[in-house]
Amino acid sequence: MGDVTTATHRLPSAGFSITIRVSVRADASAIGRLTTAVGEAGGVVTAVDVVDSDSTAVVVDLTCDTADSAHAEQVVACLEKLDGVDVRKVSDRTFLLHLGGKIEVTPKVALRNRDELSRAYTPGVARVCLAIAENPDDARRLTIKRNTVAVVTDGSAVLGLGNIGPAAAMPVMEGKAALFKRFGGVDAWPVALDTQDTEEIISIVRAIAPAYGGINLEDIAAPRCFEIEERLREMLDIPVFHDDQHGTAICVLAALTNALRVVGKSMGDIRVVVSGAGAAGTAIIKLLLRQGVGDVIATDRPGALHRGMTGLTGAWPWLVENTNKAGYTGDLKGALRGADVFIGVSAPNLLTGDDIATMAPDSIVFALANPDPEVDPREAREHAAIVATGRSDQPNQINNVLAFPGVFRGMLDAQAREFTEAMAVAAAQAIADSVGEDKLNPSVIVPSVFDARVAPAVAAAVRAAAKGPHLDSTVDGEPSSAPSPVERV
Amino acid sequence: MGDVTTATHRLPSAGFSITIRVSVRADASAIGRLTTAVGEAGGVVTAVDVVDSDSTAVVVDLTCDTADSAHAEQVVACLEKLDGVDVRKVSDRTFLLHLGGKIEVTPKVALRNRDELSRAYTPGVARVCLAIAENPDDARRLTIKRNTVAVVTDGSAVLGLGNIGPAAAMPVMEGKAALFKRFGGVDAWPVALDTQDTEEIISIVRAIAPAYGGINLEDIAAPRCFEIEERLREMLDIPVFHDDQHGTAICVLAALTNALRVVGKSMGDIRVVVSGAGAAGTAIIKLLLRQGVGDVIATDRPGALHRGMTGLTGAWPWLVENTNKAGYTGDLKGALRGADVFIGVSAPNLLTGDDIATMAPDSIVFALANPDPEVDPREAREHAAIVATGRSDQPNQINNVLAFPGVFRGMLDAQAREFTEAMAVAAAQAIADSVGEDKLNPSVIVPSVFDARVAPAVAAAVRAAAKGPHLDSTVDGEPSSAPSPVERV
Repeated sequence: MGDVTTATHRLPSAGFSITIRVSVRADASAIGRLTTAVGEAGGVVTAVDVVDSDSTAVVVDLTCDTADSAHAEQVVACLEKLDGVDVRKVSDRTFLLHLGGKIEVTPKVALRNRDELSRAYTPGVARVCLAIAENPDDARRLTIKRNTVAVVTDGSAVLGLGNIGPAAAMPVMEGKAALFKRFGGVDAWPVALDTQDTEEIISIVRAIAPAYGGINLEDIAAPRCFEIEERLREMLDIPVFHDDQHGTAICVLAALTNALRVVGKSMGDIRVVVSGAGAAGTAIIKLLLRQGVGDVIATDRPGALHRGMTGLTGAWPWLVENTNKAGYTGDLKGALRGADVFIGVSAPNLLTGDDIATMAPDSIVFALANPDPEVDPREAREHAAIVATGRSDQPNQINNVLAFPGVFRGMLDAQAREFTEAMAVAAAQAIADSVGEDKLNPSVIVPSVFDARVAPAVAAAVRAAAKGPHLDSTVDGEPSSAPSPVERV
Repeated sequence: MGDVTTATHRLPSAGFSITIRVSVRADASAIGRLTTAVGEAGGVVTAVDVVDSDSTAVVVDLTCDTADSAHAEQVVACLEKLDGVDVRKVSDRTFLLHLGGKIEVTPKVALRNRDELSRAYTPGVARVCLAIAENPDDARRLTIKRNTVAVVTDGSAVLGLGNIGPAAAMPVMEGKAALFKRFGGVDAWPVALDTQDTEEIISIVRAIAPAYGGINLEDIAAPRCFEIEERLREMLDIPVFHDDQHGTAICVLAALTNALRVVGKSMGDIRVVVSGAGAAGTAIIKLLLRQGVGDVIATDRPGALHRGMTGLTGAWPWLVENTNKAGYTGDLKGALRGADVFIGVSAPNLLTGDDIATMAPDSIVFALANPDPEVDPREAREHAAIVATGRSDQPNQINNVLAFPGVFRGMLDAQAREFTEAMAVAAAQAIADSVGEDKLNPSVIVPSVFDARVAPAVAAAVRAAAKGPHLDSTVDGEPSSAPSPVERV
C-alpha cells in the first residue's frame, strides 16, 4: 500500500471504536493522563465513563476511535505502559454490535389468545391459502411478497474483501437488510448461498422466488453476475436488480448529472474514462451511453478496451463494440489526457494528482474504489473541479444507499414485474434533484445518505416510471384497484 | 362429508369472523334487531361498534363469528332482509389480518448517524466478515445464524389442503414463523420452494444453510419428506427437524405419557393402532416403539400393514418389519378390537362411537385429523376413557406448537449440530410434566398452547439432552465458552 493511501487510511473512525476498561490510581490527574495517552497514540477519545471507584482507585470505561486493529492494539499498549494503570478488558464495539446478528423476524400479528391464533393460523389461514391457490397474484396482497426482497449473494465478491464465502458475507447482507428497512421500509432477507455455480444459483433463486416481491443480487463476482441477472430477469415475474451494477450506475448518473450542472458541460460533449470494466463499470457505461454521453473509454488490467482485442468474454465484447470511438490502445493514464470525467470502480492508488492535471479543464473525478480510492481525493481536488469518492469522511460521498431502498420501495408499491432502464434514469434524476438548485456546488453534488427526502423521492419516480396498473397506490396503502375483502365472504 | 362431521364443523369460530357495516333506522330496538337476526342465522355476535349516527339512522360495525364462508353469506343475507337495514360493507377479519403478510424484518441495530452506520455496515463490518472467514464457527455468534431457523416447504402437503404449491403455502409458513417468535423467541423465515423435486430441494436447502442455525421442514409430502430429511441430516452441521414427523411424535408421546398415568397402564403393556402410515404416523410409531410400547398396528388405505405385503416403498418396508407382531391382515376397525390406544393421523370420519366401544377397557383415543377428526370426539368420549383431538374447541388439544418453539429454542442455545431422539424424548417428558400431577385428569392430559411455562421447560430439557459443549449457556445469554471480543483487538 502506497504512502498516499496510508495517510488516508489511518484516520480514526467509529468503525474501529473500542472501549477499554482500566483501573487507575485515584488522583486529580488520573483520567487526564489516560485521555492524553490515547491522544498521543493517535486515538480519539469519544467517551469516558466512571464505572467504579474507591479511595485508592477509579475504574473507567474509555471509549475511543482508532484507525484499524493494529492501531487499537497500539493504543491499548500505550495505556498499559502508564504507571499505576491496569487495563482490565478491551471491548471492540463493532463486534459487540454484531453479536447475535443485526436483524430479527417480528410478527405483525398479535397471538395473544385463541381467537387471534385461529385467524393467523389454523383454521382461518386455510381460506387465505385457498384464495392464493385460486388466484396466485393474490400472494402480492396476502403474503409478505407485498413488501419483501431477497438479498442474494454467493459470497464471491464481498466489499473489497473478495471471495470470502457465504457465511462470512452474512454480516454485510444483514447490514444491507437493515438499510433496506431503515431507508425504504422494505423487508429484506439475506440469502447467502453455499455455491458459486451459475446454473445452481439461477435455479435456487428461481425456486425461492414465490416468497419475494423482488430480488437484489449482491456481491456476486463478474462475469457470473451478468448471466445470473440476465437469465433471472427472463425467468421471473418480479424485478431482478444487481446492486453492484444498477445501484452504482444510478448513483453515478445522479452525481454526474449534478456535476455537469455545476461545471456547465452537457452529456453529449463529454469524454468519460471508466477504470474497472467489471459489473459496476459495465453498468455505468451502458447507462451513460444511453443518456447520450459523447464517448467512453473503459480501462482494465490490459489497458483501454478497444476493437482490436480478441478472445474476450463476459461483457467485454459488447464494450469494445460500443466504446472508445477513436480506438485508443494505451493505458489508463494516457486515456485520461484531455478527458472530462474520470470514474473509478477498480483499485486503490492507480493515479496521482499529476495524472488528474492532464485532464480537460473543469474535470470531474469520481474515485469510488473502497475503502481506498483510485486517487487521493485531496490531491485530486487540487486539479479537478469536482471530486467524489465512496468515503464518508470526504465531501460528495457516492453511496448506493441513495438508490436501492427507494428503487425497491417504488417497485414493490407499483407491483412491478421487472426493473427497467426507465426506472434507473428516473431514480437518478430524483437523487440529483434532491439537491436543490441553490445548494448545488462542487462539494455538494449528491444528497447526504441521511437525507430523509431522498428515498421517498426515488420511490415516487420509480413508481411513475413503472407505469403499472397500480400507479395510484400510495407508499403504505394497498393498491386501490385490489379486490376488497368483501368479495371473499 | 358425513352428518357427524357436519355437526362438529358448523360451530362458529373466530377463524371465520366477519365485520358487517350496516346502516339501520334509528329507533330504540334498532341494534337489538340486528343482533337477534345474526343469532337466529346461527352467528355469534362478538362486538357491536357504533360508527356514526344522526337523528334518523345509526351506522354500526357488527362483528360476528360464523361457521364457514357459506354461513357468513347466509348471515349477511338475513340482515339484508330486515326492514330499514342497509348492509354497506362486509369485511372478512381473517383476510384483513393477512393483508401484506404476517411477519416483518426488523433491524436490531440503530442506524441513526454516521458512526452507527460505520459500525453496522462499511467500513466496520469488514472486520466481522474477516473474523468469520478465519473462523467459520464464529457465524453462530456474529450473525443471525445464532437464532434463526428456515421453515422449508415445497407446498405439497399443506395442512389438510394438499398440494397447493409454494405461494399458497406462504400464509401457513408465515404463521409458523410468527409462532416460533411468539412462543420460542426464535427468528424463523419462510422458504417456500417452487420445486417438488427431491434432489433439487436437498441441494437448495444445503446451499441456503449458512444463514441458519436450524432447518424446520414443513408440509412436505411423504415419502419424499423422509429422504429429504435423512439426506440433509447427513449433510448439514445444523439440526434438521421435520415438524410433521418429529413435532407430532413428540406431542403424541407427551399426551400418551400422561394418558397412561391417568388410566394406570404402562407403555410395555399396551397395544396401539395408528391410522395413517405417512410422515406423522411413521414418526409416531418409531418413537413409541423405542419407548417400549408393546405392539403397534399401522393401518393405511390397504388396511393393516403386515409382513406379507410386497412391493412396498418409502417407510413401509420398515413398518411391516417392526410392527404388527401377530401378523393381523384386516382393516382398521378390526385392528381396533381390544386395542388400548387409537392414534389417528389420517382422514375424517373413519370411525364411529361403536368402533371405539370395541377397544379394551380404559381405552385412549387420539383422533388428530384436522379439521375433522377420525371420529367425532363427543361420540368417542362415550366409550373411551380419554379422548384428544387437534381441535381447539375440544378438551385435550394436541398441537405441535407445544413442541417446536421450545425444541428449536433449546437446540439453538445449545448450538446443537443435530436433532436427536434423546431430545425428542426429553421434550415430550417436559411437555407431559408441565401438567402438574394434581391437575392431571381425563380432560387435561396436555398443557394449554398458551401455557407460558411449556416452551422454556422444553428448551431446558432439549439443552440438557444436547449435552453439548455449551451446556452452561442461558436462553438469552451468549455461551460462556465463546471467545470474548477482547481477543479481536
